[in-house]
Amino acid sequence: MVKQMPPYTYIENLPSQVGQEVTLRGWLYNKRSSGKVRFLILRDGTGLVQGVMVKNKIPEEDFAAFDRLTQESSLSVSGVVRAEPRAPGGYELDLTAVQPLHLAQEYPIAPKEHGIDFLLNHRHLWLRSPRQQAILRVRDAISRACREFFSGRRFILVDTPIFTPTVCEGTTTLFATDYFGERQAYLTQSGQLYLEAAAMALGKVYCFGPTFRAEKSKTRRHLTEFWMLETEIAFAELPDILELAEALICHLVGQVLAHRRTELTLLERPLAPLEAIQPPFPRLTYSEALERLAAGGHELAWGDDLGAPEETFLSQAFDRPVMITHYPKECKAFYMKPDPADPRTVLCVDVLAPEGVGEIIGGSQREDNLSALQDRLREHNLPPEPLEWYLDLRRYGSVPHSGFGLGLERLVAWICGLHHVREAIPFPRLMDRLTP
Amino acid sequence: MVKQMPPYTYIENLPSQVGQEVTLRGWLYNKRSSGKVRFLILRDGTGLVQGVMVKNKIPEEDFAAFDRLTQESSLSVSGVVRAEPRAPGGYELDLTAVQPLHLAQEYPIAPKEHGIDFLLNHRHLWLRSPRQQAILRVRDAISRACREFFSGRRFILVDTPIFTPTVCEGTTTLFATDYFGERQAYLTQSGQLYLEAAAMALGKVYCFGPTFRAEKSKTRRHLTEFWMLETEIAFAELPDILELAEALICHLVGQVLAHRRTELTLLERPLAPLEAIQPPFPRLTYSEALERLAAGGHELAWGDDLGAPEETFLSQAFDRPVMITHYPKECKAFYMKPDPADPRTVLCVDVLAPEGVGEIIGGSQREDNLSALQDRLREHNLPPEPLEWYLDLRRYGSVPHSGFGLGLERLVAWICGLHHVREAIPFPRLMDRLTP
Repeated sequence: MVKQMPPYTYIENLPSQVGQEVTLRGWLYNKRSSGKVRFLILRDGTGLVQGVMVKNKIPEEDFAAFDRLTQESSLSVSGVVRAEPRAPGGYELDLTAVQPLHLAQEYPIAPKEHGIDFLLNHRHLWLRSPRQQAILRVRDAISRACREFFSGRRFILVDTPIFTPTVCEGTTTLFATDYFGERQAYLTQSGQLYLEAAAMALGKVYCFGPTFRAEKSKTRRHLTEFWMLETEIAFAELPDILELAEALICHLVGQVLAHRRTELTLLERPLAPLEAIQPPFPRLTYSEALERLAAGGHELAWGDDLGAPEETFLSQAFDRPVMITHYPKECKAFYMKPDPADPRTVLCVDVLAPEGVGEIIGGSQREDNLSALQDRLREHNLPPEPLEWYLDLRRYGSVPHSGFGLGLERLVAWICGLHHVREAIPFPRLMDRLTP
Repeated sequence: MVKQMPPYTYIENLPSQVGQEVTLRGWLYNKRSSGKVRFLILRDGTGLVQGVMVKNKIPEEDFAAFDRLTQESSLSVSGVVRAEPRAPGGYELDLTAVQPLHLAQEYPIAPKEHGIDFLLNHRHLWLRSPRQQAILRVRDAISRACREFFSGRRFILVDTPIFTPTVCEGTTTLFATDYFGERQAYLTQSGQLYLEAAAMALGKVYCFGPTFRAEKSKTRRHLTEFWMLETEIAFAELPDILELAEALICHLVGQVLAHRRTELTLLERPLAPLEAIQPPFPRLTYSEALERLAAGGHELAWGDDLGAPEETFLSQAFDRPVMITHYPKECKAFYMKPDPADPRTVLCVDVLAPEGVGEIIGGSQREDNLSALQDRLREHNLPPEPLEWYLDLRRYGSVPHSGFGLGLERLVAWICGLHHVREAIPFPRLMDRLTP
């Protein structure tokens, strides 16, 4: 007699199905035996659940199948849902059927410690580990919260191009591709210039997509391909974007705490430092930061850029992100507007995450005066021709405007408490890593 | 005496501010005079509003400023909001102050007709036109609805890599870049293979990002850079993704009708064909499609792929998207699973939008058997080495799984009623177009 299958469900739905017989499909995470009882832990992408098999309470064939199941074999199991406070997740299944679907070959990732190269070579399988799943689920929640934040405030999403004909910042760190044998196209490092054009059309805009830097650096903060959230707002000035960046970070952290607490706990991420992320964030000018650095034994001359050690020192000095404004203009890009009150500095902000993570947001008020912008291009030895379209934005109804960019992977790494950004993206691309 | 500024607002907020004095900032869209009355139309990215100036009811200086205002000059205006059913948008401003911010040089885009090359050369300004703004706002609503659809169903967003070491479909249409002088990296044409790996970890996943095809075609359906929404679901079979694709398209069209009706009207997009988009969608096998084509004078031999004329014919035959399944396996990619009931065909679906738009979704059940997949690679002359990681998904707990991809620009073009996809993306990249 063929037994009718109970309805399929997911592990995340079990809390509402206590007492019911359900069927789950997934993969074997682990198993153990104890006398006449067999325990298996199933994962299905939404969680883990332990199933309990008792001899004579399950078809003989299904009981026997247990022995053949290898780690990561796929299977279908039916059982009655039972609340079990001691179980991870709080529920167990009293199994009534177990059907192997595909028996896995010997799984290369054992519970033992593996080297990072081995794990990255097996990234397509490593993603199955509870820790990597948790990180991806946090990343998913952050991405969603980013979009909700901006669309809830009626910003319009404007996808900026990846292929660009010109150079925005620095030429040495660009990836290039042959464009139909006619010319080179460069992979974007930032959508900002295009977003400025869109802000003059739509007022408040944002983009969120991959960006590329061919930087020859192998630090724990660098990827060659990473996702960046950028926004640009017509009529916004520096104080407006400080407020917006502060609200954004608080929203993102709050959403992760609200919806991904289980994952943070699995990652052993202390929650208290995240719960401390509340407005207002401390704000320092670059000059004030220099004084604070000097008092801490980090002497810098006025005009020197802050490096990783200085950023780490400053970000460790506060329990929430610190906003550093008014850098010397030599440290920053050509499009930033000098501060009328001190033209040696620009109206910019770097937001440093706490706990030593360093910069997660960079932004500024943009130069909106045509001739001042042309001067800045000359100072930076940038030819104006490829940027004539960008200069047009200062010819036809120029307005004050400001924006910022947030690096997704650094934010994910901070919120998850990861040492290296390579775990913060599904398939990391590094200077020496292009596979799988 | 300096008059205190009333609070800033946006045009989209005026309906709730009738009778109040407000200040708007934006750009001059148009102006005209009639005796002692001056009319200006302001745009601020959220809409258009007419402001009315009457001599002696506004400071003399502000009244005089009217004459200097050129098209696209930026300005700040204050006025009292009044409901005016005859006005576009339904509201007008009785102006109390007008302050020019920046007088635009002679604006290159006049109300007259311009050639498409001229407009694309000025894309950074063309975006300001009401029509282009409307398209971008529809695109924004569709992108948001895509993500809401999947996150509401508890799919996890998995950003797949842009840089790939290997080739997924065809080698001639790939963009390549030098990767640190060591090897070539290719720009992705699809995140599918990576999404399959992620589905084995997380169950239900999706990605939404730019993809690239170096196709030497100049049709109205092709861009070299376009956005694709892709999904992959463990344990899903062909009928499951037919249902999901149908629900997705109905959701997207419904959300645009709910939130962007003003924009569709501005685009003169007939709404009735969109309101007809309801389940169930007609479903035809490839063989049934061939019969229908033959009856309509389009003879094809069994095994021939459907071209643009055939897709257009079929999509015009129905008032809603038509789902064509079970193509000959020679027409389709190596990873599609043959139909056990007729192994000459694969378990696939192409969804053709109505009104002659053609394919907007392509999907399939994937081959989940290791040796069958290895055979398919051989048949397609694809070397297995670079895909060993992908084959691993069939070694370690293989499960039935299916997915599909949706081309964003074709969908936007269909919903907006655009002839060419180049207007469906903020900064189109075509074979002969890489600027601005």
